Amino acid sequence: MVETKNPAAETDRTAAAPGMVWDAWGVPAGHKPLPEQVRSLVTQVFGVSGEPVARRDEGGVPLPEPALPAALLAGLGAVVGVEHVSAEHRDRLRHAGGKSTLDLLRRRATGTQEAPDAVVFPGSHDEVLALLSFCAGLKIAVVPFGGGTSVVGGVQPLRGDCAAVIALDLRRLDGLTEVDPVAGTATLGAGLTGPQAEALLAGHGLSLGHYPQSFEFASIGGFAATRSSGQASAGYGRFDDMVERLTVATPAGTLALGRAPASAAGPDLRALFLGSEGTLGVLTAVTLRVHPIPAAVEYQAWSFPDFETGAAALRSVVQAGAAPTVLRLSDEAETGVNLARSGDIGGGAVAGCLAVTTVEGSAAHVAARAAEAHALLTAAGGTALGPQPARDWEHGRFGAPYLRDALLDVGVLCETLETATTWSNLGALKAAVTAALTAALQGQGTPPLVMCHVSHTYPTGASLYFTVVAKRLDDPAEQWAIAKTAAGDAITGHGGTITHHHAVGTDHRAWMSAEIGDLGVRVLRAVKRELDPAGILNPGKLLP
Amino acid sequence: MVETKNPAAETDRTAAAPGMVWDAWGVPAGHKPLPEQVRSLVTQVFGVSGEPVARRDEGGVPLPEPALPAALLAGLGAVVGVEHVSAEHRDRLRHAGGKSTLDLLRRRATGTQEAPDAVVFPGSHDEVLALLSFCAGLKIAVVPFGGGTSVVGGVQPLRGDCAAVIALDLRRLDGLTEVDPVAGTATLGAGLTGPQAEALLAGHGLSLGHYPQSFEFASIGGFAATRSSGQASAGYGRFDDMVERLTVATPAGTLALGRAPASAAGPDLRALFLGSEGTLGVLTAVTLRVHPIPAAVEYQAWSFPDFETGAAALRSVVQAGAAPTVLRLSDEAETGVNLARSGDIGGGAVAGCLAVTTVEGSAAHVAARAAEAHALLTAAGGTALGPQPARDWEHGRFGAPYLRDALLDVGVLCETLETATTWSNLGALKAAVTAALTAALQGQGTPPLVMCHVSHTYPTGASLYFTVVAKRLDDPAEQWAIAKTAAGDAITGHGGTITHHHAVGTDHRAWMSAEIGDLGVRVLRAVKRELDPAGILNPGKLLP
Repeated sequence: MVETKNPAAETDRTAAAPGMVWDAWGVPAGHKPLPEQVRSLVTQVFGVSGEPVARRDEGGVPLPEPALPAALLAGLGAVVGVEHVSAEHRDRLRHAGGKSTLDLLRRRATGTQEAPDAVVFPGSHDEVLALLSFCAGLKIAVVPFGGGTSVVGGVQPLRGDCAAVIALDLRRLDGLTEVDPVAGTATLGAGLTGPQAEALLAGHGLSLGHYPQSFEFASIGGFAATRSSGQASAGYGRFDDMVERLTVATPAGTLALGRAPASAAGPDLRALFLGSEGTLGVLTAVTLRVHPIPAAVEYQAWSFPDFETGAAALRSVVQAGAAPTVLRLSDEAETGVNLARSGDIGGGAVAGCLAVTTVEGSAAHVAARAAEAHALLTAAGGTALGPQPARDWEHGRFGAPYLRDALLDVGVLCETLETATTWSNLGALKAAVTAALTAALQGQGTPPLVMCHVSHTYPTGASLYFTVVAKRLDDPAEQWAIAKTAAGDAITGHGGTITHHHAVGTDHRAWMSAEIGDLGVRVLRAVKRELDPAGILNPGKLLP
Repeated sequence: MVETKNPAAETDRTAAAPGMVWDAWGVPAGHKPLPEQVRSLVTQVFGVSGEPVARRDEGGVPLPEPALPAALLAGLGAVVGVEHVSAEHRDRLRHAGGKSTLDLLRRRATGTQEAPDAVVFPGSHDEVLALLSFCAGLKIAVVPFGGGTSVVGGVQPLRGDCAAVIALDLRRLDGLTEVDPVAGTATLGAGLTGPQAEALLAGHGLSLGHYPQSFEFASIGGFAATRSSGQASAGYGRFDDMVERLTVATPAGTLALGRAPASAAGPDLRALFLGSEGTLGVLTAVTLRVHPIPAAVEYQAWSFPDFETGAAALRSVVQAGAAPTVLRLSDEAETGVNLARSGDIGGGAVAGCLAVTTVEGSAAHVAARAAEAHALLTAAGGTALGPQPARDWEHGRFGAPYLRDALLDVGVLCETLETATTWSNLGALKAAVTAALTAALQGQGTPPLVMCHVSHTYPTGASLYFTVVAKRLDDPAEQWAIAKTAAGDAITGHGGTITHHHAVGTDHRAWMSAEIGDLGVRVLRAVKRELDPAGILNPGKLLP
């Protein structure tokens, strides 16, 4: 066991995790003009001009008057230190919500932006606990805020029936407080971003291996609270699979959950807080399963004649217990525009379906596993394309949200949504969602391009991740709402889950009764009453 | 999808699952006199006579007068049919509790036995739902009863503050109602025993692969309600890992949980019912991950110089992602008496520590996985002994509880207990529990033989399963209670979980606050209030 503090962490709360720009994904350096090939493609297909529009200046965006009087700000400051409470315009604006396309469209619209009344930056579990007690007593809503990458409205500054709302920014919970190299576990502060966590672990020769598309900005606490799943989930599991222990602050006190790698001591209460999205408590520290930094990685790309053949091939390796570390398959539409190869998107038609595998571990493990997986994929109709397309995919894998911004800038609507189902239902669900999205947008005069990939596989089924691109209408929020509703209804109507890894937030609440039943919702409400009787925790999220 | 009814099921409720004898484990055919080698060993070590004592005749055992008047029995009969309600002596006695050593000692003691007032055998989910509604209205306690194999008091006929108590025997829920060979899932009735489930699945070329020691008698619903773990857990996972969907009847209505192989649609509510031990609802059907009957199996036994070396070797294969299907390690004491080889227990001293591996799957998978695992186990200090000791272990693996009965018959106390912890804490926890058991029994003048094995492994840790044998005192229940308390305190005091796969029942309730905290207990109580406001579901279990 060691104590290691993030060397990058400073008293300046913005140093550790700079956060994202207010009206788009990521950091300024990530934003580039639309590649010429893509501009040409969307101009041709959607008839847009392809010329970017100017965006608003951050400083001039009007916000509502903060609803917290100075005395209450001082009360919050008494808990965390006055320097860790802010009602400044910039802090409020940068905690005004997440990064769904609807969020970005709202930011780009004119008019007043919604925002929390203050942003509070606690520095410890005990401070979070004290803040919750303070806010419960005064009926101030609390929105836990990690990386702010939610694409389902999970960090909207909603106040419900509370008098005010604060964003609880957890970036100062940024320590690596315990490492057990024998067990392969590490305890990480909830506010660490993906790169910060990996950097701290690398100091011990370890890695977490959780690489969702939000990796660069999202936080350890956010991964847990939303049941995130990373691109290496076939090898390292979903984030919830990696969680050994959780520390949770609630208005009713602290929960420390998880005593052993496995237990039969009653229901596993960790599962109540994984996916609770800040509505039942605030995750302050997470003990995770980690592994040595892989000694070897084998990259391989594959071509399949069609999606059905490719999906059956993925199924064969997973069900044989021979899953690679990364295992993903693009459908014909996604393969056709090279979406998985960021450097060559739109670059000429590509036939069939592209799949990508990587196998990580010791040299011996990689050799054994890759041989077994390759034999199965080949037997199932795959043609090996060599490592380069897989390396290309890895190189560009966090870039897609920047591309979405560039598309929005030139008048193209772009959004993603995702689900999961059994292998036997995969084709039917994919067809139903594609048809629903196509009909909903075509009916508005904007026929879309709908692309799909499988990026998370299980013995019994897989995820489906859809990317939708269409010409943007004058009211793009309404345009997308119609399409999103149609897709959600198609998902629940055809046996899928309303979300495989994006979580519920505000955007999927309407489908929660379909997902867990009215009685399931009552169970969650009963837990919330016990832990958050004042109802201050992230109102308006998760529960319908 | 097909509908298949258990061909063995008949209207006679005792035909499908005959259940166990009332005062010992298993069926009469399984009971044999103590092998001469073992008799000689215990005579020598513990100074007992080695002569078996006569047991009581079932028919003559006095039971309390049933507390359910005829009108209420008729009411229960109106729900399930009068032929499926019994207040007969034999039915009541055979639902009088589980099979812990304390249970068996109670049965063998003279005097009146506790028993449920009636036994009810519902035939469908809707009948279970209606029974719960009926019993909630009249405040009749309901003890869900599967195979009756609990070793922690989980099926004790406790009535709490209710006027009466019934055993809800689920054996008629014995269908295989859905098979999806593509996804690899099957929906099984909660009352099916392990062999019944495997027989039904075998008709489709499929297998579940869940083989706990209770396999021959325990039920699908019981496995789920107690978070069981089978001997092939390294390959197929714990039972809770295998659960795709759950159907739960509660006094507040039905829950149908699990919509996809993985989801981020809020907390995974399946986890609230896995391990709920009948206190939150009655599991009526479980959809499980299954796999094709393995084409190949590779057996191998190993010798390690000592437990520490063996445990490190197990860790190396699991952390490399190369775990066999079965992976277990006996410590020096267990190896020394050949406990893992039922045909030769007590047969001469054996040095070092025995480990057993099996690898199942396709021929190609077995070849690849066995090669990788063997290389790692050899590199970590293991010596391959060939397949025979592994086959011997498999052959005798369900026989240990019968041996316990034979030992009890000759005046030897024998019981097991188990825990789990991280790899880094494994040796220290094993030493602490062994020391606590030894001191507690030695202090009573009965120095024990304490043996241990690892039978369930995870990337971050493993289980520890202890077998304790000592000369039986005049009050063996008190004798064991002292030892059990010492062991439980040592487990929680040294970082273990109070139970890895036996569950909580009555026997581990005292440690639940240590396990999940007082606030965790409050959360479970809040869920119970919502689903079971009358408090009829399995009172006195799980919750402290």
